[in-house]
Amino acid sequence: MQKLPVTYELLKKNGNARAGVITTPHGKIETPVFMPVGTQGTVKGMSKEELLELGSEIILGNTYHLHLRPTDELIAKFGGLHKFSAWEKPILTDSGGFQVFSLGTIRKIKEEGVEFASHLDGSKRFISPEKSIEIQNNLGSDIVMLFDECPPGQSSREYLIPSIERTTRWAKRCVTYHKRPTEQGLFAIVQGGIYEDLRDKSFDELKEMDESFSGYAIGGLAVGEKKEDMYRILKHITPKLPENKPRYLMGVGEPLDMLEAVEHGVDMMDCVQPTRIGRHGTVFTKYGKLVIKNASYAEDDRPLDDGCNCYVCRNYKRGYIRHLLKAGEILGQRLTTYHNLYFLVNLMKNARKAILEDKFIEFKEEFIKNYSLGKQSEWINPKKIGENK
Amino acid sequence: MQKLPVTYELLKKNGNARAGVITTPHGKIETPVFMPVGTQGTVKGMSKEELLELGSEIILGNTYHLHLRPTDELIAKFGGLHKFSAWEKPILTDSGGFQVFSLGTIRKIKEEGVEFASHLDGSKRFISPEKSIEIQNNLGSDIVMLFDECPPGQSSREYLIPSIERTTRWAKRCVTYHKRPTEQGLFAIVQGGIYEDLRDKSFDELKEMDESFSGYAIGGLAVGEKKEDMYRILKHITPKLPENKPRYLMGVGEPLDMLEAVEHGVDMMDCVQPTRIGRHGTVFTKYGKLVIKNASYAEDDRPLDDGCNCYVCRNYKRGYIRHLLKAGEILGQRLTTYHNLYFLVNLMKNARKAILEDKFIEFKEEFIKNYSLGKQSEWINPKKIGENK
Repeated sequence: MQKLPVTYELLKKNGNARAGVITTPHGKIETPVFMPVGTQGTVKGMSKEELLELGSEIILGNTYHLHLRPTDELIAKFGGLHKFSAWEKPILTDSGGFQVFSLGTIRKIKEEGVEFASHLDGSKRFISPEKSIEIQNNLGSDIVMLFDECPPGQSSREYLIPSIERTTRWAKRCVTYHKRPTEQGLFAIVQGGIYEDLRDKSFDELKEMDESFSGYAIGGLAVGEKKEDMYRILKHITPKLPENKPRYLMGVGEPLDMLEAVEHGVDMMDCVQPTRIGRHGTVFTKYGKLVIKNASYAEDDRPLDDGCNCYVCRNYKRGYIRHLLKAGEILGQRLTTYHNLYFLVNLMKNARKAILEDKFIEFKEEFIKNYSLGKQSEWINPKKIGENK
Repeated sequence: MQKLPVTYELLKKNGNARAGVITTPHGKIETPVFMPVGTQGTVKGMSKEELLELGSEIILGNTYHLHLRPTDELIAKFGGLHKFSAWEKPILTDSGGFQVFSLGTIRKIKEEGVEFASHLDGSKRFISPEKSIEIQNNLGSDIVMLFDECPPGQSSREYLIPSIERTTRWAKRCVTYHKRPTEQGLFAIVQGGIYEDLRDKSFDELKEMDESFSGYAIGGLAVGEKKEDMYRILKHITPKLPENKPRYLMGVGEPLDMLEAVEHGVDMMDCVQPTRIGRHGTVFTKYGKLVIKNASYAEDDRPLDDGCNCYVCRNYKRGYIRHLLKAGEILGQRLTTYHNLYFLVNLMKNARKAILEDKFIEFKEEFIKNYSLGKQSEWINPKKIGENK
C-alpha cells in the first residue's frame, strides 16, 4: 500500500475533542485549525505576511473560481498555485462542487457530471469528477477534495439516497483519475443530510476506499438546516470517522458552531464568513459580533475587542476603523478582515491548548458565557471619548 | 521673532538642486522627498507599516475630505489626525482649496471665501481662509497650507492678477487666524500661472509675511498647462524662493517632471497619481509605465520592474498581479500601489544621493534615457513563461 502524502498524528484526546498535527508536502498544521478561504488565489484583503502573522497555517483555494479565471492551465504553467500566489504553506482546494451548485445559474446533474453556466460570462460549462481532479492536479494543492453533490440542508431522504450513491460512484472515479496520489492527499466527503442512518450509509460506502483517502470531510452541514440538526449530526458522525486521519467540517465559521464541532472531534474548518462580514463592517468580539460600521461607534476610541492582542487591536481605534469603512477605504476592509481571521484562527489555537491541558469543556463554557452576553456587555455598547461607563 | 515649528537645513547644492533636512514636530524629513497622499486619513490601500517600509517620511491629509467626513471636529476629539490614524511621522494638510475648485459642483468665489456643494451629499458649504486654518488646526498637521485660489493652467493674465491679489489678502487672514503657530508650520503658495512676472508678483507679495512662513509652495502647475510652460516657470521661480526654507511643488508625480523640479531646487512633491494609476492597473518601471492589467502580461513570470528591490518585485510575478487586478482583488491594488509609491519615494532618495555626490545631472540623464525607452525595452514588452527573448 502506497504511503499517503498527508498524514495525521493524534497527540491528545479530551473527551472526543482532539489535538493533533497534520503533515503535508508543504509543512505541518496544528489542529484543531481554522483555514482562511482564498477563493481566487488570495485571501480577500490579506497579504501572505499578514496571514502568517495572524497564525494561518493553511489556506483554501477555490477550484471553480480558479478554473474559470485565470484558469488552472495558466496556474500550472507557473508551477501550481503555491508558486503562482507565492504562498509556501499548505493549500487545500475544494472540488468546485459547492460553487457549481450555489453559483451556476443553470445546471443539470447527470451521472457523468454537472452542467452549469459560468457566473462570469454565462458560458456553458461541464464539470465531472475527473475534471475536478484534473483541475486540482493542475493547481497542485496539498489536499484535494472529492467531487460530490452538496444537497440543500432540508433535502428529503428520498432525494438524498440516490444522491449519496452517486457521490460514492463519483468518489471512485476521482480516486481512479487522481494523477498525483503521492503529492496530493485526497479527502472524502461524507454526505447524508440530517439523517444519522444516511450519514452512516455515506461513510460506510466511502470507507471501502479508505486506503486512498488522507482524510474525511463532513459536507452538507451549515447549508440551511436547523442548528440542533447540525449539532446532532456532528455528534453522531464525527467520532465514527477514522481516528488516524484528519476530519474536516466544511463551511463552518461561527465561533459557537466551531467549538461544538471540536468537542465532537473535528480537526479542520473553513468559512468565508470572517472575511466577508469583515469587509461589510462586522467584527467578532469575545462578547459577540459588533457592527463597527454603525454611527454609534464614530466616537469610540477603544480597540475592536476587549483584550485582543492582534495587530489591529494594538494599533487602531474603533472610530478610525468605522471612518475608513464609511469612506470606502481599502484599509478599513483590511483591518476588519485581519481581526476576524485572527479571532477564529486563535479561537482554534486556544481550543487546542485547552485540549492539551484536559480542560476543553471549561474553555468552551467560558467562551460561550462571554460570547452570549452581546449588548449586556459594556464592550459591545458604544462609548464616546471621555465618557465614563 | 517667534521660532518657526518647521525648519530646513540645506546640506548640499548641486547646481540649483538641493539636498537637505526638514525638521517638524513629528520628526525629520530628508529632501528631496515624494509625499504619498492620504486623502481621507489613509494612503489608499496602504498600512502605516507598509508606508514606513517603502520609505515614506511624510504623508498628506486632505482638508476638504476630512472636513466633510468624518469631520475635523471628530478628529480633534481623538487628539488630531496623527492619533486618529495612528501615523506618528509628519503630516502635511492641504488647504482644501484645490478640492473646492475641482470637486465642488457649484461654487461662488467671493472676497469672504468660496461657496461650494459637498460632493458627498450636495449640501451647501462655505470655506474661507479662517475656516481652512481652523480645520487644519483641528487636524493638527505639522505643515499647514494657506487657503488660495488655484486657477486653471490656461488662465489669462486678466484673470490671474485679481486672483493673485485676493490670494495674498487671504494669506494675511490665514496668518492672522492661525491658532497654533508654534506647533504647525504655515506654507505660503506662490501662484501666477505661466507668467514669470505674475509669479514674481505673487512671491513678492507673500514674502512680506516671510517671518510667518515655514516654507513656500509652488501652486497652479500641473493643472493643464503645457509641459514647456511648467518647466519654464519652475526654472524661473524656484531658485528665487528663500534658500533657508523648504520649497514644495504641489500635485506633481510624473518621474520626469519630478527630476526637472529637483534640478531647479524643489524639495517636496506630492501627487495622487502613483496610488490612482496603481489601483487601475498601471505601474511605473525604469523603462516607462506598464499597463499590467493588459492580457498580454497574463503569462509573464517576471517581477513588475527590472532590478527593483521592493517587497512586491521580490515576491510576486506579473501574471499573478494581473490576475488579482482582473479578479477585482484588494491584494492586486495593494501590490501595484506599494510598487508605485516605492518607485517615486526611492526616485527622490536616489536623486538626493546623487546631489550629495555632486552628480545629479548624470543621474537625471541616465534615468531619462531608460525611462524614454518604453516599448523599445524588452522589459516593457510581455514575455510568456519559458519564452526566450
